[in-house]
Amino acid sequence: MDVITDVHDMKAYVREIHAMGETLCLVPTMGYLHEGHLDLMRRGRTLADHVIISIFVNPTQFGPHEDLDTYPRDFARDEKLAESVGVECIFFPGVQEMYPQGYATYVNVEQITEGLCGAGRPGHFRGVATVCAKLFNICDPDCAVFGEKDYQQLAVIRRMVDDLNMRVQIIAHPTVREADGLAMSSRNKYLSPEQRRNATVLNRVLIQAQELVKAGEHDTAAIRQKTIELIRSTPEVVIDYVEIVHPETLACLDMIEDQAVMALAVKVGPTRLIDNMTLEA
Amino acid sequence: MDVITDVHDMKAYVREIHAMGETLCLVPTMGYLHEGHLDLMRRGRTLADHVIISIFVNPTQFGPHEDLDTYPRDFARDEKLAESVGVECIFFPGVQEMYPQGYATYVNVEQITEGLCGAGRPGHFRGVATVCAKLFNICDPDCAVFGEKDYQQLAVIRRMVDDLNMRVQIIAHPTVREADGLAMSSRNKYLSPEQRRNATVLNRVLIQAQELVKAGEHDTAAIRQKTIELIRSTPEVVIDYVEIVHPETLACLDMIEDQAVMALAVKVGPTRLIDNMTLEA
Repeated sequence: MDVITDVHDMKAYVREIHAMGETLCLVPTMGYLHEGHLDLMRRGRTLADHVIISIFVNPTQFGPHEDLDTYPRDFARDEKLAESVGVECIFFPGVQEMYPQGYATYVNVEQITEGLCGAGRPGHFRGVATVCAKLFNICDPDCAVFGEKDYQQLAVIRRMVDDLNMRVQIIAHPTVREADGLAMSSRNKYLSPEQRRNATVLNRVLIQAQELVKAGEHDTAAIRQKTIELIRSTPEVVIDYVEIVHPETLACLDMIEDQAVMALAVKVGPTRLIDNMTLEA
Repeated sequence: MDVITDVHDMKAYVREIHAMGETLCLVPTMGYLHEGHLDLMRRGRTLADHVIISIFVNPTQFGPHEDLDTYPRDFARDEKLAESVGVECIFFPGVQEMYPQGYATYVNVEQITEGLCGAGRPGHFRGVATVCAKLFNICDPDCAVFGEKDYQQLAVIRRMVDDLNMRVQIIAHPTVREADGLAMSSRNKYLSPEQRRNATVLNRVLIQAQELVKAGEHDTAAIRQKTIELIRSTPEVVIDYVEIVHPETLACLDMIEDQAVMALAVKVGPTRLIDNMTLEA
């Protein structure tokens, strides 16, 4: 396994791959890898000759009162896990390497960053778009795989890549879930056993919403109401938002015409969790 | 001469050049080419195997009360001029091709965009950085040449390229001047013969400043004062700003320690002109 911490070394590594006429897939991560990440990497292996991942807990996407300092990290474990699914190289830069003294450039995707997680996490998607623009320029991947769990992030990255005419192809990969339906997340490790059980309500309300739509309910207010009731009946789970939005613009919908996405964020104790599912009318 | 209006066609054109192992220089312009632009293109020919230029009057860098609609345009003339200096291809996209329906992504370079022209033209450098990011991604040039006349623009582009780890090398080219010292600009065509004569005060105050520094005056307040006096004694010329700044950070300086840039903007009648020169202590 190659571990590269320097931007210029990473660029040189990638140039060699392209010089051989071979293709490259990037899986950007913040580390503390779980089965969801590994599935993105396995997907990457089917898409390109080489898979590299980045591990970078990106400070510009954390708010001042968020969990940057306590975000879980375990590089030795991550390295073994990545190797086990055929990753050849980890780009593992330090904060100074990515944001040196005098750094001043940020990529803003407007509109679709305003609702959902953007409303409660001002600047979050500015940080996400900026670090992804940098990673795409450094690693020059033919494709990059993102999980659908971070649905708004995926929509923001797609928008940025289209708008700025970047060459990378963005691949969406389905959310990987635990046996009881909880979406995998590095933040699940914060949950106590009881919180962990309560958190499964997220998956249950999403399936309930899918079933309501299948049964003919297309009025989003009614679906949201039933969702909110079920979450509120669960101890320790506090709603941040429950929204039913257009899959691309992320605009809130009154009626589900064909496809929509139900997206939600809650706090379970101090831990913020998000999840989403597509609803098909 | 190849004239390409479509982003995908432009990308394909450039891929062919790179596939042959040859290099490419881009000269971004807003058209209405003058000798200054042509000199950037000649410089480009010394730097790379191929020179392409873009001609795009970029709406996102014009403010609501600026001269977007009246900005001078003459494509047939531009095409002949570019051909005369060995340009092989013009990228000439329409506004819808660059900013299609739903466009939402902007590149912001902070700090160095706040003073000088940024103070009076809010959003201008956001538009400049955004369109250059797009042009660099579309044309994938090995280098791009920018004139020093737009000094702040050059500093903003350099900052963006460094910060976002873009591969293009930014080349600064000295300002080309008319025989009487007026910096060449597409906007000079707006000037009446009398305004044209009055506008030469810009070059004269910059040379006066260089001579003051050479004579031992390092106090920027004193140099600015003499500059302002000479401009104010010229009919029809109204100062927007006169600043002496650090060459990279563009921070205003009290004393000139080694190198500084005097940058100024005036209105001559309704026409806004800018110019700058390096001052060496």
